[in-house]
Order: sequence, then structure tokens, then C-alpha cells
Amino acid sequence: MATAFVPSTTLRLRPYSTLRCLSFYPKNLTKPYPVFPPLIRRSPISPRRFFSSVISGALHSGERTKSELAEKQKGQMGSKVGEFRKKLKIVDVKGGPDEGLDRVGLMIVVAGWVRTLRAQSSVTFIEVNDGSCLSNMQCVMTSDAEGYDQVKSGLITTGASIWIQGNVVPSQGSKQKVELKVNKIVLVGKSDPSYPIQKKRVSREFLRTKAHLRPRTNTFGALHLYNGLPLAGALVARVRNALAYATHKFFQENGFIWISSPIITASDCEGAGEQFCVTTLIPSSREAVESPVDAIPKTKDGLIDWSQVYTFGPTFRAENSNTSRHLAEFWMIEPELAFADLKDDMACATAYLQYVTVAERDFVQLSYTDAIELLIKAKKKFEFLVKWGCDLQSEHERYLTEEAFGGCPVIVSDYPKEIKAFYMRQNDDGRTVAAMDMLVPRIGELIGGSQREERLEYLEGRLDELKLNRDTYWWYLDLRHYGSVPHAGFGLGFERLVQFATGVENIRDAIPFPRTPGSAEF
Amino acid sequence: MATAFVPSTTLRLRPYSTLRCLSFYPKNLTKPYPVFPPLIRRSPISPRRFFSSVISGALHSGERTKSELAEKQKGQMGSKVGEFRKKLKIVDVKGGPDEGLDRVGLMIVVAGWVRTLRAQSSVTFIEVNDGSCLSNMQCVMTSDAEGYDQVKSGLITTGASIWIQGNVVPSQGSKQKVELKVNKIVLVGKSDPSYPIQKKRVSREFLRTKAHLRPRTNTFGALHLYNGLPLAGALVARVRNALAYATHKFFQENGFIWISSPIITASDCEGAGEQFCVTTLIPSSREAVESPVDAIPKTKDGLIDWSQVYTFGPTFRAENSNTSRHLAEFWMIEPELAFADLKDDMACATAYLQYVTVAERDFVQLSYTDAIELLIKAKKKFEFLVKWGCDLQSEHERYLTEEAFGGCPVIVSDYPKEIKAFYMRQNDDGRTVAAMDMLVPRIGELIGGSQREERLEYLEGRLDELKLNRDTYWWYLDLRHYGSVPHAGFGLGFERLVQFATGVENIRDAIPFPRTPGSAEF
Repeated sequence: MATAFVPSTTLRLRPYSTLRCLSFYPKNLTKPYPVFPPLIRRSPISPRRFFSSVISGALHSGERTKSELAEKQKGQMGSKVGEFRKKLKIVDVKGGPDEGLDRVGLMIVVAGWVRTLRAQSSVTFIEVNDGSCLSNMQCVMTSDAEGYDQVKSGLITTGASIWIQGNVVPSQGSKQKVELKVNKIVLVGKSDPSYPIQKKRVSREFLRTKAHLRPRTNTFGALHLYNGLPLAGALVARVRNALAYATHKFFQENGFIWISSPIITASDCEGAGEQFCVTTLIPSSREAVESPVDAIPKTKDGLIDWSQVYTFGPTFRAENSNTSRHLAEFWMIEPELAFADLKDDMACATAYLQYVTVAERDFVQLSYTDAIELLIKAKKKFEFLVKWGCDLQSEHERYLTEEAFGGCPVIVSDYPKEIKAFYMRQNDDGRTVAAMDMLVPRIGELIGGSQREERLEYLEGRLDELKLNRDTYWWYLDLRHYGSVPHAGFGLGFERLVQFATGVENIRDAIPFPRTPGSAEF
Repeated sequence: MATAFVPSTTLRLRPYSTLRCLSFYPKNLTKPYPVFPPLIRRSPISPRRFFSSVISGALHSGERTKSELAEKQKGQMGSKVGEFRKKLKIVDVKGGPDEGLDRVGLMIVVAGWVRTLRAQSSVTFIEVNDGSCLSNMQCVMTSDAEGYDQVKSGLITTGASIWIQGNVVPSQGSKQKVELKVNKIVLVGKSDPSYPIQKKRVSREFLRTKAHLRPRTNTFGALHLYNGLPLAGALVARVRNALAYATHKFFQENGFIWISSPIITASDCEGAGEQFCVTTLIPSSREAVESPVDAIPKTKDGLIDWSQVYTFGPTFRAENSNTSRHLAEFWMIEPELAFADLKDDMACATAYLQYVTVAERDFVQLSYTDAIELLIKAKKKFEFLVKWGCDLQSEHERYLTEEAFGGCPVIVSDYPKEIKAFYMRQNDDGRTVAAMDMLVPRIGELIGGSQREERLEYLEGRLDELKLNRDTYWWYLDLRHYGSVPHAGFGLGFERLVQFATGVENIRDAIPFPRTPGSAEF
């Protein structure tokens, strides 16, 4: 199991943050219910009443009207809103320090979906998942349980939703400490026999066509059932969630302010082949180089004079490329630091990545010039020729991080200005700019950043060289008129980070509803 | 000051969460630097060296190349990335429990922007803001300070960026406990005399045309300078940041998983007048009613079988309306709860709003039918006639929350099905659906939600009644084929929440770069 989450053999994930989401308890064990105590603790003696009220509450909400009318007749128009109570979940039972043994003897209710059902001669095993964690609750049932007829008649099948009431008992099996001895079962929503997520080999490609059901492929068992895939479905989504929250935490704890950058822009639609029209969307920094008109760094730098800000929002690229590394719609994290240079930028990117994923490993930095020298000297045969001035290809990037530096993340800095965007700060050598790319094993470029050109005359000169219209960039130049400062920032494609943390090979499996050229279902 | 942040006279903001951002210290005082200790604590005896290294680091990044070459010549290709160190900020000095008095005697560096400069006969006062908090550092300078010639010659003006080195001393003024006695000043970036954010009355409309400089209007002093506006610029952005982070915290602490819903969709472009074409964007739930084809609840419900999920991302509406309550691009928070009914939904919405903004106040709920009765009986004269079956107008919503219930947030539930979306659960009365709107003072509708129709036959029936094509909704219906469950959720327009929390009247001032019909600059 553990190996599936190791980004590479030479990197180790930190148990905190990312992996926290893979354990049963996402929170501090001593304080698991920061806001609302679980219902079971509030009324441990009356689980049946809890069960009944959940059922009636959920299924017969129309009844409410009567009581409202009764109140009204009493002359009280309006009533108080009820308390938001955390319901008992599988994670609460199995996620404790003794994996549920402390709940043995308690009667509880589980509401969820049937993952598997095995009927033996005298006993039926139902694996139920309620979405609160990756682990199922094994429910054991004999023919004397209320509602057993629904099982017998074949109504309860894989994919069906059910309510089960039972007692927590020690499990005879080796896979879990406790299981549920069923007293009563209620079918909530049946599952048609055509249910596509069956216990058989299902390819990633097939699952993408079932994106609305894909999260149901999240059991540990599925790890080897699904064609040997290391990860699938909801597990990736859970890592994604944990990475997103860790991202916010890191920046908030370090004094950054989150801002939402606009998506709709009024940029001219030149180079239309590479842009969505009508709504002109924002390219990633890589595209910015290829299509200079798009290169306005709207989303990131220079917009404000706060010390440190970051964005985290969706981004779009209209380029018609079908690779396992690109999406038409993806999420980006873009911090920007005022009064900062490229070294600060690299340090921030490193601290960020260490916080959310990788621990106990040095990050290496070297210049583009040194990287080229290293690649030229390498014994490896590359598909693309290496020489000073060329952009690094994925094969070069991966060689650097995976082989030359033995699996360490590598930051390459000071690229030739011709292959980078106009707004990057020119170095004193006249040939390079203060840009940096962070390369990680299996992914290649994960982060791209730069110190920005804060000197008005250099910036205007570069615009002129590239035959870009100064008027288009009026507000960006304006910021250099009024208290310009050295500043730097970077962009990180969030789905690549999810790939890096999970081991998922195709970027389309790193986002719930992938959009690629010609693909926008769901 | 405090009154400016009270959403209404009858609601009180909780000091925790939202208001936390308005204090100097956003974090736990006992542990202010969870990741990186401040530089001043690392080397308190050598502030001059810190100052020098910041300057050279920021301004002369090209020098780095030399040391890299030196290392290379030693035979070491690649070097270790430096530590990401938190720099000392004004918030660190003035935000302590004794407002900076504990730092008296220390020499520190402040880097920021000039807010005001007052030259008296023997002494010059410069108010500097570094973006770390709303408070400025008052810097006091006499003619013997290094770099004073730049002040004398008029180079340092409002809007300019500067580095100042000085000693923390007790302040003679009443507005702050400490100030900075300047030893040295360096102009980083001058400000052109045309700088538009001067110390004079500036209207909100004018500031919107200067969105790239608007955050500089954030001083407390500006509260009365800017035409009596309660809030402006960066202060709103800070509240926005705090609300966003509190949103993530609330849902994460309550077992929700954040998912990113797609923005690009392949929906048919019927009713094109109300949609962005080429890229078909997602309407808010209100629009969903007005333009039924758009009503697929892609972004929210039924996509997954996890217990609880939420989205927080940008949303778009193509309707050509120019009001102070609508944007073409806005952010939405949309939680969805499985195995939940409308009561759970209302309880969740209430708990959420209490967590992020409003404390110590009851939330009232009543049915639409009761609300109509109450409005009909009201002595108030409304512009729009009230009768059962009509949608509530803003004036009705505000009457309910502001007058009928004395400033309490009010949840109206069980609306006529004709004025709500097809996917809302039909009540047993055959006339109403399990929908709810939360109304708050000054804003009206802040939250709209519903229990979803989980019964396949009811859902298909409603689609047919509305002449909507079942094929379009194949995957939504599919979820009702395979283990359907009662579920509910709501949507909250984030900018309205920002309006509610800040008192900002026009929604265009609640987002950094507002997009409205015909307006997409920056």
C-alpha cells in the first residue's frame, strides 16, 4: 500500500499534510469534533431513535409543514433553525486509535453504498462505504435481521444505497478490528444491474467515460482489481483535497493574502488559434512565451502593493494538444512576493513543496548554463539535441532530476531571455533572465517562476524588441511609474502536483472532470 | 471604527475568523511563526547586515552567477536552495500585545510604500505601509539621516517605494505606541506626480478605473478621506481573504472534501442570449430557473457519492444586467450533503454563516406560504405586489429580515415549484419544493439551496413537464439509477458574503477586478 503513494523511490512523503487525508482521521485525534459533537455521544442510549429520525427526516421532509402550521396556529410565525450536527461516520468508528474497539457493544447506524455483497449459506457479508474514508464497514447479517428479505430477493446489489443499524462487534477477519452485526437493513436507492463499476478489471479510459461514478472506485481492494492501477477515483480526489487545503494553510500561515484573479479578459484576440474566443482566457506562463500577446501576467504579478499575495483558481489553455501532461482547464497556484528576488522565489517554492508533499530531501539549484553543460556531457542519448539557447524538453528535465541529481527536485535558473516571457527580469549578462523552473521526478517541470522586470526602461525596451504594443500593457507599465519594487513569483499547475503526490500517470485522472480538446462531457 | 464593520445594527460580528483579519495579528499570539522564525530573532544584533543583504539580494541578483560559477569550479555542479525566511513586517512590530513597545531600542528595516509625507521645519514624518497590515509605520526623520537629500529634493513622494532603516522608539503621538527614528532611507521606485491616489476625495467609481492601484487606499485614515465610504481597497480584500480561508476551514473541519467543478461545458447553446457562447458557462441557481437549459446542476449535486463535498470557484452569468447586486464573474461556495434533507441543509448553512461572520443571533425559519401571509399583512407599501406563487423581490426579502424579524437572518423554505429549478425535491403537497433561501439584512438573498429530487420517476416527470430533453441529463439521471440517496446543498455568492461582512454597497467593490457587461479591463 505505502509504495503506491511514494512519488519516487528517492522521495519520502511527510506523514503530515498530504498523507493525513489517507489515514482514517484527518484531524487531531484528541479533538476530533471541533464544532459539533457526534450524535452518538449526545444520545448513546437511543440509537434507534436516531435511526428513525434520520430516516423520517430524510425521506419525509414534507411532514415538516404540519409542525410549522401548528406553530403558526400558536401565533408564532417563524421558528428557530436546528443545530448542524455531525452524523456518525465510518471514519469516526474505524479511525480511532484502536480502530473501533472502543465502540464495541454500541448500536450505530451506517448509511452508504454497497461495495460488495457475499452471501454464504448462513451469513451475508456486505461491505458498505459512506464516503467518509477509504475504508468500508463490513456488515455481517443473518436471516433474522429485519429487512433480510430485501437481501434474499436480490434487491440489494453493488452500488445500491442502504441504511444499516447494528452493533459494533470485534471482527473475526484479519482486515479490520471491528465489524457491524446487522439488526436492520433498509434499501434507500436500488442499483440497476447495468451498474458499470463492477468487481472486475476496469480501465482508466473506461472510468473517464463514467466520471460521475468514478469516485466509487476508491476501495483499497480496487487497487489491484482495477488493472493494477496504483490509484483511482476518490483516493486521488482526497489527495487533491488535502493538497489544496495544505496550499491555503501554507500561504495563510506565511502572511500571504489570497486574491481571485479574473478569468474573463478583454485582450485582443490575436493569435486566435491559441485562444478561446469571445471569452479571452488566460494562458499559462509556458504558452505566454509561444503566444506573446497572451503574455500579460494578469493573474499574477504587480497587481497590488501588498507584500505577498497568491491566487488559486482555474486557468485555461486553448492549444490543441493531446498529451498526458496537459489539460484545457486546470487549476493554478500563483504566489507573488514584493520586495523579493529570484532567490526568495526559489526558497518560497521549495518551502511550499516541502510543506505540502516532500520531506527530508535537499532541493538542488543550478543555472541553465550549467544544466546544458551537464546534459551535453551526459552519456544518455536524447531525442532532442541539447545546446545553449534551446528550451529544455521533458526528457532533459527528467534526466536532471531523476538521474543527474538522484531523485532530488532540481531548480534550474537564469534561462536565455529568448525562450522566456517579456516580463522576466533581465540579468546583467544581457543574455539571460531571472527565471527558474522546478523539476521533479516523473513529472519534469512542476513550477515555473521568475523575478519580474521592475525597471520601466528595461520593460519598455523588451516590449519594443518583441514588437508588442505598449498601450496594451498600460496598467502593467503604470505600476512601474508609481513605486515599483523588485518582486518575484511562480506558477504551479495543481494537477501536476496531484500527479506528483499520487503517482497517477495521466493528468486527466488528477482532476474530477477533465477538459481536453474535444472533450467536455459532464 | 468598529461600527464600520457591523453588517447591521442588530447583528454582531464574531471577533474570531472574519475580524481576525482586521487585527494586526492574524494568528495565535503564542505561536506567531509556525514555519519560519522572523529574521530579527535570528540575528538581532546585525540589522545592518540584514538590510544590506536584502538590498543586494533584491537589486543585484545577477551577482549570484559568480558564486555559482565559483562553486562549479570547485567541482560541485548544483547548490542547495536557501531557506525561505519570513522578513520582519510592520504587523510583526505593531501587532504584538504591547503594540511594538517590546521592540523599542531595536534597529529594524521597513520596506514599503509612502502613504503620506509631511515636512516640518526640523523634522519630516513619513507614513509607510508595507502591505502586511492596515496600519502604517510612522517614520520620523531629521536632516542628519543618510539619504535625506532624496527627501529634500522631492524625490520621495506619495506612492513611492522605499527602504528605511531605523530604531524603534516610543511615539510622541497618540495614534501609535511606537515609531521609527530613521537612520537611512533609500528610494526604491519613485512615484510619478500623476499618481492618482492622492490625499483627497476619490469616488468609488473613479477607484474602479484604477483597479491596479485601488488596494493602496487601505489606511484607516482613508475611511473618512474617501468621501465618507466605510471601507475601500485592500481592507475589503483582507476581509475577502479571511472569509475565504474561514470557508475552507469550516468545511474541512466538518468532513467535507473540496472538489473543483469544471467551467468549460458542452451544453447546447440554446437561449444563447443568456449564455456565453463557444465556452458555455455555468449559471447561478437563480438563472437556472430563468433559462431551463442551463439548469443542469453540474457544479453541485449528485456528482459523487462522498458524504459531503463542497466547491469554491468562479461562476459566470451572461445576463445583461447592470445592478449593484450582480457580476458577470463571481465566486461561489456550493456544499452538497449526502443522506441529508432540507433541515440538514438549513442547519449547515446556518452553522457556516455563524462560523464565518455572525455570532450570537438566532436564525429564523418559516415557510414561503407563511412569508407571503406575513408580507400581505405588512403595513409597508411594496413596489411589487405580493401573492402566493410570485418570486420574492429584494424589497420583500429585506422587509422580512430587516423589519419582520428585527435583523435576524431568515430562512424561507418550501417555495412554489414553478419558480424553482427542476431538480428540487417535490413536497407531498404537490405545489411546493424543498427549497430554501437565506435572507440577511441589506443584502436580501445570500444563500439559495434545496433538497434534490432523488426519486427517478419524479425527476423524469418534471423534465417532461418542462419539455427538457432527458438525454441532455443522462448522467444526472444515471445517478438515480445506481444507489440514489436523499441529498441537499446550497449555493452562496461569495461577493455577497463580502458585501454583508464589510458593508460595501456595490458588489463591484467586493472583488478585486469586477466583470460586468461591457467591463473587463485589467
